[in-house]
Amino acid sequence: MEITAEMVKELRERTGIGMMECKKALQESKGDLEKAILVLRKKGYARAKEKMSRETAEGIVGSYIHLDGKIGVLVEVNCESDFVARNQEFKDLVKNIAMHIAAANPKYISSEEVPEEVLEQEKAVIREQFKDAQKPPEILERIVQGKLSKFYEEVCLLNQPYIRDDKISVKELIASFISKIGENIKIGRFARFELGKP
Amino acid sequence: MEITAEMVKELRERTGIGMMECKKALQESKGDLEKAILVLRKKGYARAKEKMSRETAEGIVGSYIHLDGKIGVLVEVNCESDFVARNQEFKDLVKNIAMHIAAANPKYISSEEVPEEVLEQEKAVIREQFKDAQKPPEILERIVQGKLSKFYEEVCLLNQPYIRDDKISVKELIASFISKIGENIKIGRFARFELGKP
Repeated sequence: MEITAEMVKELRERTGIGMMECKKALQESKGDLEKAILVLRKKGYARAKEKMSRETAEGIVGSYIHLDGKIGVLVEVNCESDFVARNQEFKDLVKNIAMHIAAANPKYISSEEVPEEVLEQEKAVIREQFKDAQKPPEILERIVQGKLSKFYEEVCLLNQPYIRDDKISVKELIASFISKIGENIKIGRFARFELGKP
Repeated sequence: MEITAEMVKELRERTGIGMMECKKALQESKGDLEKAILVLRKKGYARAKEKMSRETAEGIVGSYIHLDGKIGVLVEVNCESDFVARNQEFKDLVKNIAMHIAAANPKYISSEEVPEEVLEQEKAVIREQFKDAQKPPEILERIVQGKLSKFYEEVCLLNQPYIRDDKISVKELIASFISKIGENIKIGRFARFELGKP
C-alpha cells in the first residue's frame, strides 16, 4: 500500500513526531493510522525513558473544578524549562491530568508512594481470598502480584487507564508527551477535594 | 447631621444589612459611612456567633491560579444549604478566600490546628529573645502570649488580616458574611501549591 503525503501529515499532526519516523511507522502498519500511532508510541516511550531522569524545576500548578464545585483538583506538573511551562499544549496536558484526577480519584501518584501497611493489608486480603484454593506458594505469589497490579491501576494516578483514552495509562500519556516535547515531565503533587468527603 | 436615604441605600448595598439597622448605625457614626460599617460589623459579628455552631454539610470547592500557574490554591468552604452554595455572593466569597490564601500563604486554618511541637518551639524562641530582659515570670508569660497572637496572625488563615481589607481578619470577613446570609459558614480545608516549593 502506498503511503501518501496526506497520511504522513495527519500522523504528524496527531503525534508531533518527525516526518521520516511517521512515514516509517505507516509503512510498518501498512497505512493503518491507529496502528502507526501505537508503533510510534512504543518507540516514543522508549525514547522518553532516556529523558525521565532529567531534573524538572519548572512547570505549572493547574486546577479543575467539577460539577459546579462539588469536586476540585489542584495539580503541580513539572517540566525542565519555563518555555515548555508556557506552551499551550503543556497547559492542556495539565488540565487533562486535573480532569482525570477529578474523575478517577487516585490516592497516590505512583506505586512507590503506597505506604507499606496499605500494601501489606492488600496482600493479606488477596491471600485470604485464595486460602482455600490450595495453590503452591509460588503460584499464589504470582496471583498476589497480578492482583496488586490491578490494585495499583485503581489507586495510583500513573497506573490508571487515562479517562479520555483507556488504551493507555496516565504514565504512557505523559511518556508520549515527553517524547513529543523533548523534555522530562513529572507530576509533582496533587490534591483532590470532594465536598463533605475526607 | 441628617441621614439621607442615599446614605442608607449605599450602606445597605455594601453590607446587605436591613434598612433600619443601617440608619441606626449611620446615626451612631454621625453619617460616617466607614465608621457605620464598623458599627454594623461589630453587631453582625455578635449575631454571627450564634450561628457558628450549626452544621455545615453543603458548600463548594473553589480554586485560584496565580501568576500563570506559579501558585495554585484549592479551598473547600462549607455552608448549611445547597441554596447558599449556589449563590453568586457565596461563590465570590470562596474565590476571595482562595485569592487570600494564594497571597498570604497560611499554614493552618485556625490556631487550634497549630501542632503542639510547633507551638512549643515558637514559645521557646520568644523566651530566648527575652532571657536577658529580667522580666518577672508573669510579665514574661504575657509577652509570650502577645507574641503568639502575632504568630497566629502570620500562619493561621482565620487570624490573618484579610488581604483586600486589612482592617478585618478573615474570621471577621466570614462572620460578616454569616450575619448577612444567615447561615453558618466554615472553611473546611485548603491546599496551596507554589511551584518548586514544598
